[in-house]
This record gives sequence, structure tokens and C-alpha cells, in this order.
Amino acid sequence: MSTVLPIDRSVVEQIVREIVLKQQGGPVDKPELVVSISARHVHVTDEDCERLFGPGRTLTPMKDLFQDGYYAAEETVMIVGPRKRMLPSVRILGPTRSATQVELAFTDGISLGIDMPVRQSGDLDGTPGCTLIGPAGSIDLKQGVIRAERHVHMGPSDAAHYGVKDGDRMSLRVNSACRTLFEDVLVRVGEGIKLEVHLDTDEGNAADLEHATCVELLK
Amino acid sequence: MSTVLPIDRSVVEQIVREIVLKQQGGPVDKPELVVSISARHVHVTDEDCERLFGPGRTLTPMKDLFQDGYYAAEETVMIVGPRKRMLPSVRILGPTRSATQVELAFTDGISLGIDMPVRQSGDLDGTPGCTLIGPAGSIDLKQGVIRAERHVHMGPSDAAHYGVKDGDRMSLRVNSACRTLFEDVLVRVGEGIKLEVHLDTDEGNAADLEHATCVELLK
Repeated sequence: MSTVLPIDRSVVEQIVREIVLKQQGGPVDKPELVVSISARHVHVTDEDCERLFGPGRTLTPMKDLFQDGYYAAEETVMIVGPRKRMLPSVRILGPTRSATQVELAFTDGISLGIDMPVRQSGDLDGTPGCTLIGPAGSIDLKQGVIRAERHVHMGPSDAAHYGVKDGDRMSLRVNSACRTLFEDVLVRVGEGIKLEVHLDTDEGNAADLEHATCVELLK
Repeated sequence: MSTVLPIDRSVVEQIVREIVLKQQGGPVDKPELVVSISARHVHVTDEDCERLFGPGRTLTPMKDLFQDGYYAAEETVMIVGPRKRMLPSVRILGPTRSATQVELAFTDGISLGIDMPVRQSGDLDGTPGCTLIGPAGSIDLKQGVIRAERHVHMGPSDAAHYGVKDGDRMSLRVNSACRTLFEDVLVRVGEGIKLEVHLDTDEGNAADLEHATCVELLK
């Protein structure tokens, strides 16, 4: 019998899973809503990429994400928590960033023994750390482990459509056998950004997003 | 480095975790609302208990659950899915029942490769099976693996307070950093039953129930 770690398989499948549900019966110009589930993943700096994978090494794009210019990389790292519990193969998303950051669901945090705060991406002061292990070296990350706050990316025209601005909060209703209203979804508006809600695996599974018949973004 | 399966630790901790949040400022006679997170668990028949643990063996209560007469047993089983992926130690809840049933979160089902339906407890026709392995024998379960539909247990006086009856649907709001409204919560009314909402680990983690400041049951 295989003793493969049981939540391993979902990583690759879910990291790039996107649920697109066309809105039926709405106004013709209503934006198409994409809800993506972000499985646990890591962002790295150029420097940390070299420490983990070797001098001169850069990330190798494996699969494009929904937002232009972003990708799941071929590279993965092992994450080790404070009591040597570990997740053996966590994918890196590119491109590289100015700070290394680990995004986990609470289910992952409980597994690792890391009590994570819910934070907006990049807001890392005072967050817990972990150890990252790659084929060429390891990093004792002092901070950077978060549960990413649920959020919706959009461009200026989508923001105008919904009547919201950057930093506002909206709600996402998922209609399924596990109907759920996710409240306080953070609005992040940027030029050239496509409309996309980001949930984590706990949220996607709680609402059975995969079998949802309809998703709605509500002001 | 330990290669303990990473979602193992949460089993014992969460199987009996109960979140009690006193309602502030409500009517004096408002019932106290308990929201419990049910981690993955198994119910067994007397016959299956003997097959798994040996002739004449009965369940050994380890910890009482919130509802009178129910308990987490000392006994655990290994659950093996269709591609030999497994969860090594899943707790049995007592007392025994008329049908063996496995309740998992979707996160667990994805790990095992089992596509589960969302069902009320006991409604097992056409559900997938799995293999259960105990110290004395194994069972090739033909059906019985479900994700339990979120529900609220209550007695007749609580039902009268909320103005609901058995089979109705309510909503549960969890106020936390991940504020969430769980809709279509099934109402189950019974004599001698204490007021208690049951969520699974995906739902509890999605809403960060552990750090919730307030929970509300809404008609």
C-alpha cells in the first residue's frame, strides 16, 4: 500500500483550477465572473529562488494562471513547520516577488502546527515563519506564512459596473448543495486586471464550488 | 524528520471540538448556541465492529460528545480509497448504528480520490464505498461514504423559539475575520436533543470558526 501523503494530489489539480459560470439572464454587459481556488503555494524572491534551486536558477513556467503574466512554476518546495511536520511538495507561483510568502489554508496550517493570521497578500509583518527546503538549499523563513484573505481582482470598468472601489468589501454567493455567502470579500482594483475571485481550498470545499450552479458577486 | 501524515493531528482535536459563544445583548431566554466541528469519522454496526476489532468486541467510550449518550470511541480504523490512498487513523463515534457510515470533508475525499455526495446522515443509497481496515479484519464497504449535510439539532422548545420545524432550513452566520453565512442548514428536531449546529472541518476552517466572535442562527 502506498503511503503517499493524502492531500498531495490536490496541489497540482487545484492550483490552477478555475470555475467559470456564465451568468444566466443578467444584463448583456454583466462581466463574466471567474472564481478561482488557490491551493497552498509559495511566492519567492529571486535571491530565495537561487538558494532553493541553485545559483543562477530562475522559475520555469509550467501553466499560465488566469491573470496575464502569472504562472504556476515547475518548481516545488517542502514546507516544514515548528514540530517537523511537513508538506512535501508545495508549488511556487511566478513571477518572483520582493518578499517570500507562503499561502496556506487553515487545514494546512493545522497539519503543520502553524497558527496563521488572515492577511492580505504582502502584509507580512509579525506573521509566523517556517522552513522551506529545495533541492539546492533551505531557508529559515522568519515570517511570511499567511492565510490569504478572500478577495476579488478587477479592472476599473468592472469596479464601475459594480459601483465599488479598491479596498471596498463585497459578498460572494455560491449556489450549490452547500450554499454559502462569503462576506467581506476584499476588492482589489488594478489596470489591466481581469475579474477574478480568489478563495482558498477550505472555502472552495466548504461551498462545494466545483459543483456550483451559479456564483454571484454582491455589493 | 517525521513523515507522519500531515492532517492526522487534527482528528482527535477536532472530533470533539465545540465552540460555544454566548449571545450578547439578546433576549434573556435566547438559547445558547453551540457550533461543533465534526472531523472525519466513522459509524459502525455491531457486526462491523466485531469484524474490525475481533469477536465480542464493543466500542470503548473515550470522550463524551455534546449530545447525551454519544461519544468518540477509543477505536480508530484506516480508510482506503479506490487508488490505495488512505487515511491511517479515523475515529469511530458511538454508539453503534444500523448501518456503517463514513463522514468525510471534501478535503478528505479529494485526498482519497472519492467523489462524495452531500447527504443527510443515514441517507446512503447510491453513495460510494471504501475499504475499512481494523486490527482484526477489513471491510469492503459497498456504500456509505458521504459528506454530511450541515445541520442543526434542536429540541421542541428551541424549534418553538426559532419558529421552525423538523426538515426546515435556517442560516448560520459566523462573525470572524472570514465572515460567512452558511445557508440551507437542515433543521433536525428531536425530543431530548440539545441545540447544536454541526459543520465539517472545511466549513469550520473556511469561516475561521475557532476565532469567531459571534455565531447566529437565522430563520
